[in-house]
Amino acid sequence: MNIKYLLAAAALFATTAFMAVSCCDKTTETPEAEPVDSTAIVLSNIAERKSVRHFTSEAVSDGQLESLARAAMAAPTACNKQPWAVIAVNDRAVLDSLCAVLPYAKMLEQAPAAMIVCGDLSKTLEGDGQQYWIQDCSAATENLLLAAEAMGLGAVWTAVFPDTAKINGVSAILSLPENIIPLNVIPVGHPTGEDTPKDKWLDSNYHVNRW
Amino acid sequence: MNIKYLLAAAALFATTAFMAVSCCDKTTETPEAEPVDSTAIVLSNIAERKSVRHFTSEAVSDGQLESLARAAMAAPTACNKQPWAVIAVNDRAVLDSLCAVLPYAKMLEQAPAAMIVCGDLSKTLEGDGQQYWIQDCSAATENLLLAAEAMGLGAVWTAVFPDTAKINGVSAILSLPENIIPLNVIPVGHPTGEDTPKDKWLDSNYHVNRW
Repeated sequence: MNIKYLLAAAALFATTAFMAVSCCDKTTETPEAEPVDSTAIVLSNIAERKSVRHFTSEAVSDGQLESLARAAMAAPTACNKQPWAVIAVNDRAVLDSLCAVLPYAKMLEQAPAAMIVCGDLSKTLEGDGQQYWIQDCSAATENLLLAAEAMGLGAVWTAVFPDTAKINGVSAILSLPENIIPLNVIPVGHPTGEDTPKDKWLDSNYHVNRW
Repeated sequence: MNIKYLLAAAALFATTAFMAVSCCDKTTETPEAEPVDSTAIVLSNIAERKSVRHFTSEAVSDGQLESLARAAMAAPTACNKQPWAVIAVNDRAVLDSLCAVLPYAKMLEQAPAAMIVCGDLSKTLEGDGQQYWIQDCSAATENLLLAAEAMGLGAVWTAVFPDTAKINGVSAILSLPENIIPLNVIPVGHPTGEDTPKDKWLDSNYHVNRW
């Protein structure tokens, strides 16, 4: 991706430079196009993602909600089992019902939407691999949160699994089949700007070649 | 990737066409800079991330390995516990030792480096929250994989936890303290280009407002 894009950017630069020299002789100099640094944009999006708990009243469109779900389902998944399902909620009554059973998701009072990433126990591996759905669905959730950040939206991961009361509450509200386990409920909306990212880097958490 | 390339090609065509028309008459107009579509770049990076299992012999620099770890530690983490540690490996002997205890990580024979994302059980919450480290570290892993894609590197998540034999094998090789649990071992290198992303979107995995 990067190489092709950079090649295209280089071609653009070369062409504009050539034309600047060849077609307008002494007078006209066009400003040099800055090459797009896709790497920096992606790394910055990862660093800038934050838990957004304060939302404006602006709605999130159906297309935006589907884009978030599409990002989620692009996650890696052990043996390609794809043991997941994503539920988008933008019905005020459903949001309020979720809020009532989730003491740590009071942002749902303000958020115009929520996404629920679920595991599908009918699609898991056997043995130890049965638990991989938690890892797959957590990776899917991170994709969703990063997509929200990139789209100018804000979101916050509030945990449901493995709390049995929360699982049962959310499952009843969303009419989930028995094999579908909600991992989380993620309020989504347009950020007010009050929430900012944390720098969580610690040298002591990084090791090379051995502890 | 293709969309971005087409956009870049379109921008190139539009710019050259514009200049061909505009730059040789006397009134000098500079072409408008194309706005950079950061949203598309991030969403494309998420869609283009793939499990890379084939690597060239080119080394991964120390700086690149640290960048991957920094991306990992930007992940969301329940109650800001940051129950993680990241180990970068680029010592051939250590890579070979890991390969010997991980039957599904034979790419380590070819990969010039690996990253290990670990949980730190001394930093977990109590009760149900004790298990949140799995979710936090899986989100951190996805950040790392997306950063690798953006940096032109390739990587593949191979599971360690919850397999006891693999946990013990990796822990012994890396001299991990008892509270540090390896979630995975991620071979990293420069991709040969053989591996391509999968489209995992299924309409049947997406629901709105209820199942």
